[in-house]
Amino acid sequence: MNRLLELFASRPDQYLSGEEISRTLGVSRSAVWKQINRLRQEGYIFDAVSRVGYKLASKPDKLQAASILAKLKTNKLGRELYLNEQLDSTQAEAQRLLSAGAEEGCVIVAEEQTAGRGRLGRSWHSPPGKGLWMSIILKPDIPFASAPHLTLLTAVALCRCIRRMTKVEALIKWPNDLLVEGKKISGILMETQLEEERLVSVAAGIGICVNLEQQDFPADLQPKATSLMQASGGLVDRESLLVAFLEELEHWYELYMREGFATIRNVWEALSTTLQRHVKAGDVEGVAVGLNEQGALLIRQQDGSTVPVFSSDVAESSAVG
Amino acid sequence: MNRLLELFASRPDQYLSGEEISRTLGVSRSAVWKQINRLRQEGYIFDAVSRVGYKLASKPDKLQAASILAKLKTNKLGRELYLNEQLDSTQAEAQRLLSAGAEEGCVIVAEEQTAGRGRLGRSWHSPPGKGLWMSIILKPDIPFASAPHLTLLTAVALCRCIRRMTKVEALIKWPNDLLVEGKKISGILMETQLEEERLVSVAAGIGICVNLEQQDFPADLQPKATSLMQASGGLVDRESLLVAFLEELEHWYELYMREGFATIRNVWEALSTTLQRHVKAGDVEGVAVGLNEQGALLIRQQDGSTVPVFSSDVAESSAVG
Repeated sequence: MNRLLELFASRPDQYLSGEEISRTLGVSRSAVWKQINRLRQEGYIFDAVSRVGYKLASKPDKLQAASILAKLKTNKLGRELYLNEQLDSTQAEAQRLLSAGAEEGCVIVAEEQTAGRGRLGRSWHSPPGKGLWMSIILKPDIPFASAPHLTLLTAVALCRCIRRMTKVEALIKWPNDLLVEGKKISGILMETQLEEERLVSVAAGIGICVNLEQQDFPADLQPKATSLMQASGGLVDRESLLVAFLEELEHWYELYMREGFATIRNVWEALSTTLQRHVKAGDVEGVAVGLNEQGALLIRQQDGSTVPVFSSDVAESSAVG
Repeated sequence: MNRLLELFASRPDQYLSGEEISRTLGVSRSAVWKQINRLRQEGYIFDAVSRVGYKLASKPDKLQAASILAKLKTNKLGRELYLNEQLDSTQAEAQRLLSAGAEEGCVIVAEEQTAGRGRLGRSWHSPPGKGLWMSIILKPDIPFASAPHLTLLTAVALCRCIRRMTKVEALIKWPNDLLVEGKKISGILMETQLEEERLVSVAAGIGICVNLEQQDFPADLQPKATSLMQASGGLVDRESLLVAFLEELEHWYELYMREGFATIRNVWEALSTTLQRHVKAGDVEGVAVGLNEQGALLIRQQDGSTVPVFSSDVAESSAVG
């Protein structure tokens, strides 16, 4: 199969006759025909012109585990990698794998989610092949009070990775959305398991709208959402983005486990679109001025007092901003 | 089956001949023999004396779902009840049921656990038929910062239930043990699922040493553990204790969801053996003086300053007390 693809790759935009392919690869013409059909089923598109031959018109944008693992330079993250054609949601799969004893660093990716989940029980739109829909299992063993740190550090890693890979100037909107020019490009959903008052495992769910066109979003999301492709003006290689993100996340995660929240906090504040803005979070209204040590957003009210607010204190996250 | 047991109950300590039973119940002698064999498999013990008949020597102390549900006056807790002969651990089963969509109030009981778990990854000794080993599923939807409250309210409910049902003066040792005369009689293990910074589900694991004799404990636990039977001087009916505990827990849980932590805190402090004692928790050493609003233990150090400590801050709970 690879030799056939290599042959097409060596003659870009050319039509190759069945006879020529057969001769070059040393296989029968019916074997050539079978291979091309198999590739078509995998999403490759061939132009077939009678008496002329085949041209490879487009390749499927499908994530390949072997190819990802060959590039990945992490210690743990993604070393155990599950690619799925379709899942209910990668978070649900992560919980199933955790029950079965999955280890830290395990990554679950789905080409398509049929019941993708966002915050506050909202659904998350995740059409096939155009985004990165994934969950990452972490087992940090830190006190429960540190749970908000993990959302913030994941947002930092994702924001920096997007900026580095696509030159798109993504910003973090508290608590856990990534925006480009005011439109949502990515969301993060953390599901955490505590034993007593310590974290034992976290499933970090991350959705990135990579190559979606505007019409790929449901009508109600179109005014509020965009994709990296639209923001950067070209297709973004999902595989490279995934590899880069896992490396970036591991970097910040290891730094956090070694040195604590202080550096994450500074970087988060630098990348945030929420700071210095007027926000309303539940009953609290004022100017967002930073994060405290626990990862709560500090809001300076009109009377001059500063109040820490966790996202858990705000039933409707859309009330912020 | 019930009529046969009723017959034996109406003639305590008597031998009944097969013929007499057959005549009284209006069934064949071979049907009598089959029923007695089936009861033997369920743990009933019959003395069978040739040419005399059968005597019911002892009944199994086995929890029966129908009997429990008939007595239970709760709204939710235990309405969905899973009794198991043997489980790896009721907490593991609770996690499996949660993945499958189990609702609030679901209760899992095992007559025996083969891999019962305590805090900090310790094993929990749970021999068959002599204790109550259970897990209770709650879905409180409260902020993550309130997680410690649930351990404390479960300890309050259990302590009060034991005092009411057995007159044994149990006390709470921070964070989550129940002691009688300085020996452990019960342990609580909370496993909590967060979505972002809100609690979505809790599996409250509770082990109560009800009718264990001292030789039922492993040698290393014997100096440190005791049972309600030993403390109260008589067998304790496990079914009544289970029913009473579920009712008591529901009472305190509903109160907490309605009115918050303040009342729980007062009652916990009144039932605690930790307060006014010198304690060492991690790096903090001093006199335990109460709980704060978050459920942290307040320790007054020698320099007069008071420091809040969560159990999550203490790697070794045995360092406390």
